[in-house]
Amino acid sequence: MAYRKTERVEARLADNRQRILDAARRLVSEGGWAEAQISHVASAAGIATGSVYRYFPSKADLCVEVLSVVSQREVDVLEAIANSADAPCQTLHVAVSAFVERAMRNRRLAYALIAEPCDREIDEARLVYRHAISKQIMRIVKDGQAAGDFRADLDPSIAATVIVGGFMESLIGPLSPLNADFDRSGTHGPDAVRALASQIADVCCAAVTAQPGKAASSEPHPRRQA
Amino acid sequence: MAYRKTERVEARLADNRQRILDAARRLVSEGGWAEAQISHVASAAGIATGSVYRYFPSKADLCVEVLSVVSQREVDVLEAIANSADAPCQTLHVAVSAFVERAMRNRRLAYALIAEPCDREIDEARLVYRHAISKQIMRIVKDGQAAGDFRADLDPSIAATVIVGGFMESLIGPLSPLNADFDRSGTHGPDAVRALASQIADVCCAAVTAQPGKAASSEPHPRRQA
Repeated sequence: MAYRKTERVEARLADNRQRILDAARRLVSEGGWAEAQISHVASAAGIATGSVYRYFPSKADLCVEVLSVVSQREVDVLEAIANSADAPCQTLHVAVSAFVERAMRNRRLAYALIAEPCDREIDEARLVYRHAISKQIMRIVKDGQAAGDFRADLDPSIAATVIVGGFMESLIGPLSPLNADFDRSGTHGPDAVRALASQIADVCCAAVTAQPGKAASSEPHPRRQA
Repeated sequence: MAYRKTERVEARLADNRQRILDAARRLVSEGGWAEAQISHVASAAGIATGSVYRYFPSKADLCVEVLSVVSQREVDVLEAIANSADAPCQTLHVAVSAFVERAMRNRRLAYALIAEPCDREIDEARLVYRHAISKQIMRIVKDGQAAGDFRADLDPSIAATVIVGGFMESLIGPLSPLNADFDRSGTHGPDAVRALASQIADVCCAAVTAQPGKAASSEPHPRRQA
């Protein structure tokens, strides 16, 4: 009996924790980190404020957990793409555009995760996941270099970091709730999002793709004019 | 007499303000934003703590001012480079490598300005200057497109944003005080910094440079394999 009771208690505790996280994620998806106040989350989750503190000692702890769960999912998606058997050029393009399109599907949440000014603890957790995302992109870059598709003269770690910084930065404007332009001009339907994702991926791919018919060169500016 | 006195008072006030800013910048250059506590800055500037508050109502105000002054200087440098009469490929390479090399010259300060987890007010000011830097890079990209040196199929704003995000992100690792590797391996002398800057600039330039002998194409993955 005691055993079964403990099991039930544990299941309830896990269930509560999940409900709190779900509520927090929903609120952040609506209004960013400012919405994730403990009392606010508690009422959205239907749990007493004091109980929420049993699971998450502070708002920062709760926010970091929301960021971790959502970000880890994106890392997993990128890992699956990096594992594909497609040509590296194709794989890199798919990886970048998938990331962009997924972010644009829940813009407010993605803005919070990627760019919204936030407290230091959240910002620290962001860097951890940026690094994890960078590792997956670096795998694709190394594959592409091994296959001769990507320039061999680039440090794969630098190339991956430039690519990740590049597509993250290019999301800030389109994601920003302050950026009314992207909405107002009606450029935010599925086709426009696909076009945006494809453009960003084009630039990222161009950064590493070997130029056909031209040996990779470390010459920084081969087309210098008089 | 009253006029001269006012002049003297104003000069003293301006001088105090500058001394406070200089002290804050020095402290941030040594240990990041955490060092810029008002009492700490006051003692470094040789000014009473209460007086510092007359110029900067909070630590955040002081930090934002430090960030603004230093970042505006970098924007000015990029603007001067963008105004040069060199070929756009060359100009873009110089702009990116100059930014990287200047950042590496005062790594701790640059880390604080670019990447260090920080309070929301500082993070907001960062975004403003990222945008100003992006505008200068976009000018170079547009010049390059007009000259036929850069791919015409790229949105110049997206290309500029990817480039700025890319070189900023690629600085985080090398700048980070937590990243002992860059120091330990002795790869942080002037030659290594120049090589790093050149690699980052290579990747950024490759992202937008038109491929010689090949029409610009919006085909995302031209070299797809079976």
